[in-house]
Amino acid sequence: MIPVSIITIGDELLIGQVVDTNSAWMAQALNKAGFAVIRRVAIGDNKPDIIHALDEERKQSSVILITGGLGPTNDDITKYVLCAYFGGKMIVDTEALKNVTYLFEEVFKRPLQEINLKQAEVPDCCTVLLNKRGTAPGMLFKQNEKIFISMPGVPDEMMGMMEDGVIPYLIKEFGMECIVHQTLLTAGIGESFLAEMINDYEKSLPSSVRLAYLPAHGMVRLRLTATGKDKAQTSSLLDTLFRQLKQLVAAYMVTDKDETLESVVAHLLTRQNASLALAESCTGGYISHLITSMPGSSAYYNGGVVCYSNAVKEEVLSVNSEILQQYGAVSEPVAREMLTGVLSKLKSTYAIAVTGIMGPGGGSAEKPVGTVWIAVGSALDIQTKKLNLRFDRQKNIQLTAMHGLNMLRQFILSQ
Amino acid sequence: MIPVSIITIGDELLIGQVVDTNSAWMAQALNKAGFAVIRRVAIGDNKPDIIHALDEERKQSSVILITGGLGPTNDDITKYVLCAYFGGKMIVDTEALKNVTYLFEEVFKRPLQEINLKQAEVPDCCTVLLNKRGTAPGMLFKQNEKIFISMPGVPDEMMGMMEDGVIPYLIKEFGMECIVHQTLLTAGIGESFLAEMINDYEKSLPSSVRLAYLPAHGMVRLRLTATGKDKAQTSSLLDTLFRQLKQLVAAYMVTDKDETLESVVAHLLTRQNASLALAESCTGGYISHLITSMPGSSAYYNGGVVCYSNAVKEEVLSVNSEILQQYGAVSEPVAREMLTGVLSKLKSTYAIAVTGIMGPGGGSAEKPVGTVWIAVGSALDIQTKKLNLRFDRQKNIQLTAMHGLNMLRQFILSQ
Repeated sequence: MIPVSIITIGDELLIGQVVDTNSAWMAQALNKAGFAVIRRVAIGDNKPDIIHALDEERKQSSVILITGGLGPTNDDITKYVLCAYFGGKMIVDTEALKNVTYLFEEVFKRPLQEINLKQAEVPDCCTVLLNKRGTAPGMLFKQNEKIFISMPGVPDEMMGMMEDGVIPYLIKEFGMECIVHQTLLTAGIGESFLAEMINDYEKSLPSSVRLAYLPAHGMVRLRLTATGKDKAQTSSLLDTLFRQLKQLVAAYMVTDKDETLESVVAHLLTRQNASLALAESCTGGYISHLITSMPGSSAYYNGGVVCYSNAVKEEVLSVNSEILQQYGAVSEPVAREMLTGVLSKLKSTYAIAVTGIMGPGGGSAEKPVGTVWIAVGSALDIQTKKLNLRFDRQKNIQLTAMHGLNMLRQFILSQ
Repeated sequence: MIPVSIITIGDELLIGQVVDTNSAWMAQALNKAGFAVIRRVAIGDNKPDIIHALDEERKQSSVILITGGLGPTNDDITKYVLCAYFGGKMIVDTEALKNVTYLFEEVFKRPLQEINLKQAEVPDCCTVLLNKRGTAPGMLFKQNEKIFISMPGVPDEMMGMMEDGVIPYLIKEFGMECIVHQTLLTAGIGESFLAEMINDYEKSLPSSVRLAYLPAHGMVRLRLTATGKDKAQTSSLLDTLFRQLKQLVAAYMVTDKDETLESVVAHLLTRQNASLALAESCTGGYISHLITSMPGSSAYYNGGVVCYSNAVKEEVLSVNSEILQQYGAVSEPVAREMLTGVLSKLKSTYAIAVTGIMGPGGGSAEKPVGTVWIAVGSALDIQTKKLNLRFDRQKNIQLTAMHGLNMLRQFILSQ
């Protein structure tokens, strides 16, 4: 596999003003094409650090991708440093100038300033890569078998340049090994229990195959990666090993694709042409937020009621006030009432209802912080479950959402 | 400022399956304490790369913070590599073992596996840092005046350890001057306009005072930091300068404390002993999630209706079906209907109603993606506003929530 380094340049990344989402996107795009990112380095907008990073990364990597520091303001120095580093001089690139002029006249519809013309200047020792989405051109340098490519840090400009120019160029330039991944998602089992369960399997994997554990939000993703010269052969080996892995963790597997729990639930609902409603007390709209973060969710999601107060439970969801008084809001009977209430009120096939105490306050000896009742079901059947969570408010909310969605998934599958 | 490097270890970061949010958080926390992150390096779970990174970063930085690779599974090798690097041998740490046992017995309430006991093993040449939120202990190494600290990659475990252990230790170790901060939050003005507005002020600041722009979710936080030997004197200087800054940005200032917009709204509601209800269509429960993420929100938040379908708008919120048909769901009249509906249904003092098209699908020539109508108000008065957003689904949802909450804040203040 061809080793790649990513250098991101910009003070805003170092002081934590901006979360670097570019690197993850670039790594995924490179991986799909058969390249392995071996190091990512973030540095500030200053010459010695940029030169040091270039010197360092070229030692190990064949390709060095650089983002950021290409804006028109004084703190953006990347291209001048690259020009000096590769021993060139700055010239105006005709194509880049055309692009800058076009963007200002036709797209931004703003007068072109002196400062913007500087964007068309590039070192004379580079190959220019067109930036369809912005004024800063990309620059490709080749020196002693090493390839250096500088791109803008603006995410959609970088993405356009990677897709149109950089990835196709690299694929052509190198004859590399192929790399394939398979990912599955488990729920309801901790990372260490999972590891014990598949310990023998993991030890028996050939050296060309690696297993990674990726825990998040109370679930664990398992990713199997195989590398090889022949695409068909590598894929076939991975398929066989992935099938074995799936069998080993079948009891906890949510999906054998690289997708979220909520998207698994979405597929199940869509396949049945069914609809979903939510009655959320303690999760306060978080499950609804997860569902509606997916484009197209209006096709199966009717909506929900965040019944934070008892009055809303009674008046909007018709929860029986005697049951509320007798058992308290955090109880199995109330979770059931919320479920049947929201199913009929929002005329939905399935629903999830959650009520609990997320903390830090609100707990009692009988019902400590972390006590949660979840109900999932349809007009035909209801399943309930009690959780005893022991984390902070945010994590309690996340875990309750995960359990609710996973219970619904199991409920739909069991029908 | 003391130079710091951050090394993040984990294949999942290199392959792009996980976006690194830890580094930005750490950089901000370090900055506040007077440390400057000069390089951030991400590498995979393998020994030569870890050792190379340690060798490299110690050249320039006084402090090297390491996250990740401390899980109990086979791909997690960080502590064994550190043990070899610093020439120690692995021993069981009594305190760490107590913590692991406590977490399994009292918190997770699950049987302790053989593999989990490995979590209590540490190199004998390190100082152990307690991890209150998980099983992997932190490790501090000191060698030739350089400090190396290894922490878990799980965000809340890392954050807890930074706050309780690492930052206080570093401040003490380097005999830092006293540092004081004042923070204010603005909304409704972009970073570059804000920078123009306070350009002269910023230039006139003494060298012991720094101004940081921290943009997030369509708002910009301004943080003023003063460093000095004498606490009272430094605080007094900062107070004077902060008062000037507040006057300059008064028209856009949401709060002069380091708090969120939703907590400002919460204070306003609490002070009036008023209650809030939400009618969310396009934000799908996100505003409700922001409100209920705050402990104690049940004191003023009655609840909300996520009226994703038109049927829910009509049947739960009594939105007039003729108005829905005539103007469409994304319209000012429907936002008003949703508002009055939720105010009366949930018997609340104030409400926010939002309806819009978040994308990527669902837009039309007349109502493109990003069209949003917001209504805020009470039984006495209603204010509405149209937004034309141009971002992706997630950012459109965040910005709509921000505008809704800010409109409510202004509405309450104007009453």
